[in-house]
Amino acid sequence: MEHRSDSEERPRPRSDSGHRRIPCTFEAAKDAKLDVVFLATQPEISMNLTPGFLEAGAKVIDLSGAYRLRTPENYKRWYKADHEQSALLAEAAYGLPEFYREQIKSARLVSNPGCYPTAANLAIRPLIQAGLVDRAAGIVCDAKSGVSGAGRKPSLKTSFCEVTENFSVYSILDHRHVPEVLQNSNLEEAEFSFTAHLLPIERGILETIYFRAAKDSSAAEIINTYEKFYQGSPFVRLYDPGVVPDLHAVQHTNFCDIGVKYDAPTRRAVVVSLIDNLVKGAAGQAVQNMNLVLGFAEHEGLL
Amino acid sequence: MEHRSDSEERPRPRSDSGHRRIPCTFEAAKDAKLDVVFLATQPEISMNLTPGFLEAGAKVIDLSGAYRLRTPENYKRWYKADHEQSALLAEAAYGLPEFYREQIKSARLVSNPGCYPTAANLAIRPLIQAGLVDRAAGIVCDAKSGVSGAGRKPSLKTSFCEVTENFSVYSILDHRHVPEVLQNSNLEEAEFSFTAHLLPIERGILETIYFRAAKDSSAAEIINTYEKFYQGSPFVRLYDPGVVPDLHAVQHTNFCDIGVKYDAPTRRAVVVSLIDNLVKGAAGQAVQNMNLVLGFAEHEGLL
Amino acid sequence: MEHRSDSEERPRPRSDSGHRRIPCTFEAAKDAKLDVVFLATQPEISMNLTPGFLEAGAKVIDLSGAYRLRTPENYKRWYKADHEQSALLAEAAYGLPEFYREQIKSARLVSNPGCYPTAANLAIRPLIQAGLVDRAAGIVCDAKSGVSGAGRKPSLKTSFCEVTENFSVYSILDHRHVPEVLQNSNLEEAEFSFTAHLLPIERGILETIYFRAAKDSSAAEIINTYEKFYQGSPFVRLYDPGVVPDLHAVQHTNFCDIGVKYDAPTRRAVVVSLIDNLVKGAAGQAVQNMNLVLGFAEHEGLL
Amino acid sequence: MEHRSDSEERPRPRSDSGHRRIPCTFEAAKDAKLDVVFLATQPEISMNLTPGFLEAGAKVIDLSGAYRLRTPENYKRWYKADHEQSALLAEAAYGLPEFYREQIKSARLVSNPGCYPTAANLAIRPLIQAGLVDRAAGIVCDAKSGVSGAGRKPSLKTSFCEVTENFSVYSILDHRHVPEVLQNSNLEEAEFSFTAHLLPIERGILETIYFRAAKDSSAAEIINTYEKFYQGSPFVRLYDPGVVPDLHAVQHTNFCDIGVKYDAPTRRAVVVSLIDNLVKGAAGQAVQNMNLVLGFAEHEGLL
Repeated sequence: MEHRSDSEERPRPRSDSGHRRIPCTFEAAKDAKLDVVFLATQPEISMNLTPGFLEAGAKVIDLSGAYRLRTPENYKRWYKADHEQSALLAEAAYGLPEFYREQIKSARLVSNPGCYPTAANLAIRPLIQAGLVDRAAGIVCDAKSGVSGAGRKPSLKTSFCEVTENFSVYSILDHRHVPEVLQNSNLEEAEFSFTAHLLPIERGILETIYFRAAKDSSAAEIINTYEKFYQGSPFVRLYDPGVVPDLHAVQHTNFCDIGVKYDAPTRRAVVVSLIDNLVKGAAGQAVQNMNLVLGFAEHEGLL
Repeated sequence: MEHRSDSEERPRPRSDSGHRRIPCTFEAAKDAKLDVVFLATQPEISMNLTPGFLEAGAKVIDLSGAYRLRTPENYKRWYKADHEQSALLAEAAYGLPEFYREQIKSARLVSNPGCYPTAANLAIRPLIQAGLVDRAAGIVCDAKSGVSGAGRKPSLKTSFCEVTENFSVYSILDHRHVPEVLQNSNLEEAEFSFTAHLLPIERGILETIYFRAAKDSSAAEIINTYEKFYQGSPFVRLYDPGVVPDLHAVQHTNFCDIGVKYDAPTRRAVVVSLIDNLVKGAAGQAVQNMNLVLGFAEHEGLL
Repeated sequence: MEHRSDSEERPRPRSDSGHRRIPCTFEAAKDAKLDVVFLATQPEISMNLTPGFLEAGAKVIDLSGAYRLRTPENYKRWYKADHEQSALLAEAAYGLPEFYREQIKSARLVSNPGCYPTAANLAIRPLIQAGLVDRAAGIVCDAKSGVSGAGRKPSLKTSFCEVTENFSVYSILDHRHVPEVLQNSNLEEAEFSFTAHLLPIERGILETIYFRAAKDSSAAEIINTYEKFYQGSPFVRLYDPGVVPDLHAVQHTNFCDIGVKYDAPTRRAVVVSLIDNLVKGAAGQAVQNMNLVLGFAEHEGLL
Repeated sequence: MEHRSDSEERPRPRSDSGHRRIPCTFEAAKDAKLDVVFLATQPEISMNLTPGFLEAGAKVIDLSGAYRLRTPENYKRWYKADHEQSALLAEAAYGLPEFYREQIKSARLVSNPGCYPTAANLAIRPLIQAGLVDRAAGIVCDAKSGVSGAGRKPSLKTSFCEVTENFSVYSILDHRHVPEVLQNSNLEEAEFSFTAHLLPIERGILETIYFRAAKDSSAAEIINTYEKFYQGSPFVRLYDPGVVPDLHAVQHTNFCDIGVKYDAPTRRAVVVSLIDNLVKGAAGQAVQNMNLVLGFAEHEGLL
């Protein structure tokens, strides 16, 4: 079998004229009076593109990790590089609308969350806030993601023959998404054990989260806590005690689905949180943030 | 597209005469002076087939769950049925050679372990025995298995279109394999949280096991503990600190591969244990047990 | 690993009230003054449900094979059963809008085409009609389909472990979809060789169609022939000579994509035709037919 | 999700000392008195490595396309480059033992066949030789291969997300493996239409071959023709009329399986030929050739 030539472009039908493209420059942004710019680049690129677009009058929604952590020190530890725009770092809103809706509405710069932290924070913070978790015993978050999370650049690790009929673990306890969870669910590093795995599927994240209840509780109490917290949040869906959907339920949607199992005698609880890493974990959430920033209904184009 | 007719048999080449089959009866076993009988049936079938084959003079290696738990009470709780052969239940050797080699050698009846408990016990018991685990904080075992673990009987849950590009969780905290781990790693139920997941692959189990060290430790100390424990056990392979293989490394082999990651400041440890559920988790381990029972070298036909 | 219980229903979020369901009876159809009824049942069921719904005043769009062939004789040969509604057989419109748009608009009963014939007829008939094909040399249609084409009923043939990392051929030269192509592209059986294959994917059909040109031709001439034929048909997309998309291009769409390769010295031509078997090959085409029957724009809800 | 570092090496267990490696130089080959050298490189590399190893006294089995075609002209047409070792080109044995067993036994240089031509030639040549094919009507060979056929080098075309749930056609009528079939089955280009497709699986080739019988024939006659031809060839397996295995039957084996379907009224025949592209289509066949070259039993290490 011979190699086929490698091209970034997919074949286009004859009648397809393609989309109009505005050149990606600050001047073009200014001339076109762009309302909003989405950045989906490496952190070190996004970091330094952002100021120019803001000065050009556009709101910026950045999908990289450049503006997700609150301090330059934290950025340096996890991204192994200095942060060169620390003023903007302090200004950026963390784009998880279920937590920071009002702040996002008035932000110039929204930092779209990582895919793993989106599923983790939505499951963990309401319980921490309600005092339901025995933090001393620690929370384990065992996360599994589809391959699209690794980006489109060809790599041996994401080659078909390496991934099919396979499953692997990576970034055990040291994934750079960890601090996003600590920061937004108010946890200490010692309290939160996170490990990532690569699923042989295109898209979807499922996180199995283990903890002990701080006092006698029930699946119903945990679910009620979520329902109260997510009132008015159209993209979090809850299930009856013991019921957990599979990834097919959330793929190609902007939903985060959460299921709960609780063992009363031992106070052990398992919460399962599912999203599509490309939608609620990336582009969908970016649109949700754009809706807030521009004053549209939060679910516009997403339901 | 129309349905193709459903048949249990695969097409056979013209030159293939097939294997000789001895009818599966006690008389045939006696007449053929069978040395050993493998039972791969439902627990309630295996339970009552076993005495007849033993009386016919054959050693029995049972791959069902019928003889894995030590007491009728425990069997009733997890299998929701009375055990009708409690004398044999007490007699059966648990067929994990790495733990019970000598006992298996002299057994008439060997109970081949479940697939999940094989990977879990091999990873957990040496650490419990060495006192390395903070048992009060609990052990989390997040287990993922390929579809062949569910058997060959057609079912919507294992249909291609339900499984492909999907991932799901099941038996959260209440899988019937749990007591096999408690029993053989000397754990209490409250100390061990186990959840199973269905991978969109044919074969392989990966378990990600989280715990806290009872005192300051290191990946090296944990690995050394395993190396000492598994001296003379050819089917457990260890890796350097932080190195963990993927399922391709163990598929179609009788190996159990174990990798270790340790975070010193917080004493958090993650151990990853991998097997092929059809080999070390089933048929391969059965052959390993047969080798012991019949006095062959333990690795015969398996390396 | 233990069996999970088998259920037809997927888990539903708590806030999901489900869809309103009208009981599927003739009386209910009458009472509800249903405009249209879709039948997705076995041919022998659809055949005899149809008259009742027609009498109740509903238009019927039948997705089974019951009304696809024009004569009871032909039905008997390929479906191995007598046709019990031969008057309706004669009346039914064949629901391929690109060929029979006007007839469908005024039909009471539309017979939605098979998935394989949809891709085949759209590729073949324009060329036959234009006299471009050397019919004496024969046309080969090598067809490959995703597993959803076999329906949702659990079967060993569509079990995950049988399909993954596999590929197989079936219904060689005798698939019951063959007469739909003969009938609608005006071919004799001897002129058309069709073989089906099962792809290890959920959805999508790709047919590779081989023929010789009746006279010196070119890829451009073939493409022009299609473009003229499909003027006003929004769901057929054509590609430049030698360009052929993959199944990702048509999945989850109602498009039929067609690519062409031609070898001038030998007059050999290859046409590749792609659809999603669940959309243009089934439900999408049914909606397209409904749009015509009810007087909506043909593409409503589909583009 | 962050990128994992990319490495060619897979993790190795601590006890694994690795294989002894002889440096790949002519001198080392000479010093080590190597009996045989396998070359699995690009054609332009193999072409010029071969003479040195032959001079060093080793037999060479080349898995590239460098020595498969018989004339420099043919090589230039299909490989778009001059052949720089035309004397060796004339000398090389084509390593399809089922056709050229005696020639291979005495060869210094064996050119291991391409994967597609192996399956095609084994199915076609016996029928051509027996005069069973109506050559004027042409032979269609519709070929499908797993992704490993494209090599291990990362490429967008073989990335997991591009391949999974997808299927595509490539090299329509112009694959560089075509001349290997013409040459070894004695066909003219106009008589043979070959198209390649990419299956979303790791390994395996299935070719569906369509032709018309030159005179009234039967599946039995076709199968008998094969059986006579392949007497003494242990790696070709035949099936009863109408029976065709799937790729699972040949994966990880050196077999070529052939099934036959025949339609008497129209003289149309379909032959399906299956191999594992990495075994009978590459490394297995190379070992089979080595066995012949070194005087071992042909099936040594392969059955």
